[in-house]
Amino acid sequence: MKIQEMQKEVDLWAEVNGGYWAPLSQMARLTEEAGELARVLNHAYGEKKKKPDEILNPLEEEVGDVLFTLICISNSHKIDMVSAYQRAIEKYNIRDKDRWK
Amino acid sequence: MKIQEMQKEVDLWAEVNGGYWAPLSQMARLTEEAGELARVLNHAYGEKKKKPDEILNPLEEEVGDVLFTLICISNSHKIDMVSAYQRAIEKYNIRDKDRWK
Amino acid sequence: MKIQEMQKEVDLWAEVNGGYWAPLSQMARLTEEAGELARVLNHAYGEKKKKPDEILNPLEEEVGDVLFTLICISNSHKIDMVSAYQRAIEKYNIRDKDRWK
Amino acid sequence: MKIQEMQKEVDLWAEVNGGYWAPLSQMARLTEEAGELARVLNHAYGEKKKKPDEILNPLEEEVGDVLFTLICISNSHKIDMVSAYQRAIEKYNIRDKDRWK
Repeated sequence: MKIQEMQKEVDLWAEVNGGYWAPLSQMARLTEEAGELARVLNHAYGEKKKKPDEILNPLEEEVGDVLFTLICISNSHKIDMVSAYQRAIEKYNIRDKDRWK
Repeated sequence: MKIQEMQKEVDLWAEVNGGYWAPLSQMARLTEEAGELARVLNHAYGEKKKKPDEILNPLEEEVGDVLFTLICISNSHKIDMVSAYQRAIEKYNIRDKDRWK
Repeated sequence: MKIQEMQKEVDLWAEVNGGYWAPLSQMARLTEEAGELARVLNHAYGEKKKKPDEILNPLEEEVGDVLFTLICISNSHKIDMVSAYQRAIEKYNIRDKDRWK
Repeated sequence: MKIQEMQKEVDLWAEVNGGYWAPLSQMARLTEEAGELARVLNHAYGEKKKKPDEILNPLEEEVGDVLFTLICISNSHKIDMVSAYQRAIEKYNIRDKDRWK
């Protein structure tokens, strides 16, 4: 699935449901969702251990929620996430290119 | 661009660059990147205002960094981000379906 | 109550309960608690509004959890929180001193 | 130093400097400061290691910034941080009291 299609589908969802939240409200939501992801990862790798494969289902859910919130923030600002992604991977490729020589 | 292609490309980047970080280290990175996104949004919509269009370029960069880190976390756990996304949009569609009747 | 007394009391709690978590696990916990604080604030000031005075009780709880986690991180590194605080207020006083002239 | 004195001193700082930011703007600031703390801890305990004692100085600074932001959020809502702290330590003491029997 293309990330552009995700962005369009979320735009449709927002249109039907009263539009996007205000930016700082969306940001608070991203903080909340990142916090839930942190909790799940802490359960697998922190002190109160569950087995890593026991967290796969909740982890997928939290990844989905963070991704969804990030799409909302991007759509509110007409940001093309492919362009955002390509800029990131390019930056990390350049930064790391001499690391292992 | 398909999100699966992004996941494959980041896998290749990780392979060339010594593999993925440990999960809680990746999580700390996500917290750091979410914090940079918060700073940029605060500059446009918080008390020390810049104009929203002045933040578009740094905002795209921070969205890319959060997305990249989320792909790393997903890849480390063999999570299919399309499936994660579809689960999220389905959840929000069901939750909100009677909201505007 | 002095913050040094809080730091000592938390040290005692940690001693009785198996010591502090590993640093990146504590950090994930701080991210989780900050996320819960974000959720409560979003309920009062974001799109799905409750009245601000309806959040005072849960807000106090989340502030307490963030503070407790911050004390744990500080104690693990023998950081004096009075010194940390004084450094912050001094920084903001200097930064802002000519702001309103 | 009593945490009540810190709260009073920050109130004075806010009064002189135009008052507190809006709540979701303060929350975005907390996310930003938590992100900087995450970066410092990742430098000591994550993949790109510095020695833990090399991070003590920047760690104290980030702890101070998180604490300062938490005081601002508390003051804006007239939350007594001693009460918030006592509620947290009581909760953790009760939760953990049979853990090591």
